[in-house]
Amino acid sequence: MQVDRHMTDREMRNIALRLAFDGTNYHGWQSQKGLATVSQKLEEAIAAVVGHPVKLIGCGRTDAGVHAKTYVANFKTSSSIPTERIPYAINTKLPDDISVYEAADVPEGFHAVFSGVRKEYTYLIYQSRTKDPFYSNRAMFYPQKLDVEKMRQAAARFIGKHDFKAFRTVGSNVKTTVRTVFSYDVEEDGEIVALRVSANGFLYNMARTLAGTLVYVSEGKIRPDEIDSIFESGDRRKAGPNLPACGLYMTGVWYDIPVFG
Amino acid sequence: MQVDRHMTDREMRNIALRLAFDGTNYHGWQSQKGLATVSQKLEEAIAAVVGHPVKLIGCGRTDAGVHAKTYVANFKTSSSIPTERIPYAINTKLPDDISVYEAADVPEGFHAVFSGVRKEYTYLIYQSRTKDPFYSNRAMFYPQKLDVEKMRQAAARFIGKHDFKAFRTVGSNVKTTVRTVFSYDVEEDGEIVALRVSANGFLYNMARTLAGTLVYVSEGKIRPDEIDSIFESGDRRKAGPNLPACGLYMTGVWYDIPVFG
Repeated sequence: MQVDRHMTDREMRNIALRLAFDGTNYHGWQSQKGLATVSQKLEEAIAAVVGHPVKLIGCGRTDAGVHAKTYVANFKTSSSIPTERIPYAINTKLPDDISVYEAADVPEGFHAVFSGVRKEYTYLIYQSRTKDPFYSNRAMFYPQKLDVEKMRQAAARFIGKHDFKAFRTVGSNVKTTVRTVFSYDVEEDGEIVALRVSANGFLYNMARTLAGTLVYVSEGKIRPDEIDSIFESGDRRKAGPNLPACGLYMTGVWYDIPVFG
Repeated sequence: MQVDRHMTDREMRNIALRLAFDGTNYHGWQSQKGLATVSQKLEEAIAAVVGHPVKLIGCGRTDAGVHAKTYVANFKTSSSIPTERIPYAINTKLPDDISVYEAADVPEGFHAVFSGVRKEYTYLIYQSRTKDPFYSNRAMFYPQKLDVEKMRQAAARFIGKHDFKAFRTVGSNVKTTVRTVFSYDVEEDGEIVALRVSANGFLYNMARTLAGTLVYVSEGKIRPDEIDSIFESGDRRKAGPNLPACGLYMTGVWYDIPVFG
């Protein structure tokens, strides 16, 4: 049986955007009353371009101060603006700390959160005796040298399907605290240590708590071989601290269909 | 004949600092009434550490929004604080966008400007169709690909002793507009083009006007072999534009004596 569709307006298009933002000056992604958020700036810019209000769905609710090098969001529109014109048109309405790189027409059912199969976050630590002004708000300052080798040993134990109950802040309701970490890389480049983690999903503050646990491992407060027992305990108090938001970047998101290029 | 010195206070020390700053939030280096400047923040921090007001002499009057990766300043103090403690002590009193890396005791006659023999500035251009939020305020956005080879041909003609009258903004009085450019390198690394120039001194806006002239060369508005005739004309209108402050970084300063390490 065919569904009878009545559309008073033109056919609605579903548009996905690939974008980046410096989160320093925003109260996170999600719209909050009276506070500047990334989604609010984008929704205003998109509305000005397509000529009607839009509801923008983002791939993750990043916290205040968290950044994104790669972030995907989608919205529905009746506008007939050519797809390839969309990034440029939106960017002219955006502040310099948010930028849209690409737009794509996606199937009606595409949803920036629910269609996601993998996300990647990178946590940056600036390890030096003295702060670098150019990493202010862009990395966590850490005044000693990290033990990267020991951090790698512990990080290897994050990989796989685990109950990450001990590595999150209790926040929004979730059905399960089981997630699969696909990869966890600890990369050192001079004063920068980058902690890069990909998973099928992240619990609230999970990326920052995994990073904080590795800092505790470096400091000898947690041994690499203790990670397994922290998983088993499910006890948040046994894991490391939730590191500051300014060091966290969303760096990738993948879908069940190819969205861009 | 020996000069009779009366000192009511202890012997004064002359301290040189090596520091860096992100100039985005400042009205330049030099103190101005009622406006936040880099020297004002530093003078307040130093005064809190040494226990008396200080006059800080900076190696250059950078404009509002201009950055420094390497900047040298000096001040006199009667404090007996150990030299190696000074950077740490000052940094605890500074905002995150200014950082002191090193301090050194220097001879009484050392002066951050007059003792200088060579300075280096680097101008960053972000060449891409789309802005990168992380280069906002940190590079000039340029929405096309630059002709780096042609820019190098023109830059080679800046090197040497010339009258740079055509390549400056008329500002503070100077005795002569003759300067010697020791090197001018045009480096391309992906989307970043870095224009690195060292000279025995810089006229007001000279680094930004040389950079703007190279952009005009890239755009075909000035031919590389026209640089010589611009020098001869001394006519500011024949050179390129003064590029935005946000792309400019002081990246080095050298003295007639070794100051650090």
